[in-house]
Amino acid sequence: MIPVEEARSRILGSLSATGPETVSLQEGWGRVLAAPVAARLTQPPSDMSAMDGYAVRAADAAEGAVLRVIGAAPAGHPFGGGVGPGEAVRIFTGAPVPAGADGILLQEDAEAGDVTVTVRETVRPGRWIRPAGLDFRLGDVLLPAGKRLTARDIGLAAAANHAWLTVHRRPRIGILATGDEIRLPGEPLPPGGIVSSNAHALAALVRAGGGVPLVLPIAADDAGAIAAAAESARSCDLMLTTGGASVGEHDLVQQALGPQGFVLDFWKIAMRPGKPLIWGRLGTTPLLGLPGNPVSALVCGVLFLQPALAVLSGLPAGAPALHAARLAAPLPANDRREDYLRARLERGPQGQLLATPADRQDSSMLRILAGCDALIRRLPHAPAAAPGDMVEVMELEQLGL
Amino acid sequence: MIPVEEARSRILGSLSATGPETVSLQEGWGRVLAAPVAARLTQPPSDMSAMDGYAVRAADAAEGAVLRVIGAAPAGHPFGGGVGPGEAVRIFTGAPVPAGADGILLQEDAEAGDVTVTVRETVRPGRWIRPAGLDFRLGDVLLPAGKRLTARDIGLAAAANHAWLTVHRRPRIGILATGDEIRLPGEPLPPGGIVSSNAHALAALVRAGGGVPLVLPIAADDAGAIAAAAESARSCDLMLTTGGASVGEHDLVQQALGPQGFVLDFWKIAMRPGKPLIWGRLGTTPLLGLPGNPVSALVCGVLFLQPALAVLSGLPAGAPALHAARLAAPLPANDRREDYLRARLERGPQGQLLATPADRQDSSMLRILAGCDALIRRLPHAPAAAPGDMVEVMELEQLGL
Repeated sequence: MIPVEEARSRILGSLSATGPETVSLQEGWGRVLAAPVAARLTQPPSDMSAMDGYAVRAADAAEGAVLRVIGAAPAGHPFGGGVGPGEAVRIFTGAPVPAGADGILLQEDAEAGDVTVTVRETVRPGRWIRPAGLDFRLGDVLLPAGKRLTARDIGLAAAANHAWLTVHRRPRIGILATGDEIRLPGEPLPPGGIVSSNAHALAALVRAGGGVPLVLPIAADDAGAIAAAAESARSCDLMLTTGGASVGEHDLVQQALGPQGFVLDFWKIAMRPGKPLIWGRLGTTPLLGLPGNPVSALVCGVLFLQPALAVLSGLPAGAPALHAARLAAPLPANDRREDYLRARLERGPQGQLLATPADRQDSSMLRILAGCDALIRRLPHAPAAAPGDMVEVMELEQLGL
Repeated sequence: MIPVEEARSRILGSLSATGPETVSLQEGWGRVLAAPVAARLTQPPSDMSAMDGYAVRAADAAEGAVLRVIGAAPAGHPFGGGVGPGEAVRIFTGAPVPAGADGILLQEDAEAGDVTVTVRETVRPGRWIRPAGLDFRLGDVLLPAGKRLTARDIGLAAAANHAWLTVHRRPRIGILATGDEIRLPGEPLPPGGIVSSNAHALAALVRAGGGVPLVLPIAADDAGAIAAAAESARSCDLMLTTGGASVGEHDLVQQALGPQGFVLDFWKIAMRPGKPLIWGRLGTTPLLGLPGNPVSALVCGVLFLQPALAVLSGLPAGAPALHAARLAAPLPANDRREDYLRARLERGPQGQLLATPADRQDSSMLRILAGCDALIRRLPHAPAAAPGDMVEVMELEQLGL
């Protein structure tokens, strides 16, 4: 049994990012940049008015001064001429400040006449003017390669005049559920049969992580069926299996995939839930074999699949974020396996997290996992913990689960 | 000027959830249930073995006992008969426990002979058996209406034997950018022109909130163009405009939309950034007019659009989540407008958030917003705050921005 950290390092160290593709700006949200986005213009392109009012020479615009209004500059219609001594140009938010002007007389501080304006509050030089390049300048790198694009980033790339983005191709993840007892939801269920839930939950987890799931037909527990299904997944960036990874004689994944070119790296991790986890390579396709128990499969999905998806997507290699939380109930000392306990989270008045472990931690109980918010990580041989002690938690929704 | 809370209440109070649609389980992730999901079966359907080993009668299985192996029960192939006194059935994880057996002799605690097995560790009744219904029972409501489906929920719905889900239709949100100076990214840019960023950032924000954006052609600043564009958005669940909401004579949205049946509810909010915000109804379509400055538009997007999308999607009405954080730099006293300051967040060793306000808070500076993590909320007339004081923050990525 190898430690969780080592398992994750070995998995992530053997993966590399998918190649680039060009997508329209409208399709860019949530994608990971494969090339930086540099500004194709300076923003604002020239000095701009930040308010509605009059562009003036500040030296002329002391309280009580009367200025001659020589024109108007609405946004999108720059005033062609300059502002001379004793002159003013009507201006609106977002319009370029005409040459000669160095301050804005606010509309509410101005009294408009027929062809003049009277200053009711002295104008300070530079006031209410956004200088050229305030936001960014031509050539500035605004978004680095390897960044997952937020809605703000999409706005920034648009403002920088990009209609197209170079992003990493979404990783395609084959998902193979195995087991004679497994059936698709809604299909006829034989005695002792179990409805397949792992493949569908994992497909959702793949989507949450920015990948494209390819759910393969369920393979019965015989070598031929598994091999045939595996064959169709060779075009994937990563292959997932679920079930068939524990010690019993009916756990065929390893045996069935051997003749297909499967090379095992490791298959037992010192963790709970989820000890039986296969990692290897099927030809050139990395293969992650998840346990069959639904909770084990999803916890391993958070610990190993999501970081793998990140690396395949072009993001940095890393572990799921751990946050500090206070424990609301006691926990016994841990054994030699790293433990991930299902827990509910609340926030205290000072912003601190409070974690209450679920009463039952059976790895078949999907309903409890669905109702929880977090996993508490307990390191191997962690001593018993009392209410109020600090523990480390992973927040499930933030991890796409 | 009306307070932020009142504005949000008036917006949310006038919206209702979209109607239901049927989607396949595979399309269910992130959607909001319009009908509860109840279990269509009991899980596990009968007592199941939690381990590989032998199903035995605990009374017969004291250490040293030799039991006769009368058959095998792999998962998916239940053993048809019962287990009588002195008998054992080979069993595997996930297989039904045969009648008569009430305990599992673990494989590692058993010594297999040709037709017998020797008990090496006394079996306790009920041990390693998952009783029928441990996870859920037929008819249990597992997921309520109004829940946004996580990957775990998809797994749970699958396990409960649902191939289809009844969810709220994704709200369709029309997005109309207005302004003579606005151009699409990559298109020819006249002097004084600005590349449209708001519509694209808002479209991404709509996607993040589970809606379907409909980006309308940019409307020039004249009544006819805006009216024509608005007409094409009447099929939307909500209409967004951006730009044209401040006090200048070139702010045409209100005037242009009036003849189209626009009825204003309110249009000024006591907040910064984002004072000019229009709320009303264009015929039967709710209309939210966002400010033209990119930061103002997106902050208003988080405060008003995302909660509106939630209500339209069938989720409860509410405000964006606020978390407590410690301030890392001093803040001056606030005026009568509720302020949302761009800030970076870090986490301290005890899990507490530390917020550092950005040096510049100009509402045209999109690059600063893109590089921040949070908004600090400052209530009207909040007193000056010192480093170490507690403030309230909204985390931007959690809000879809």
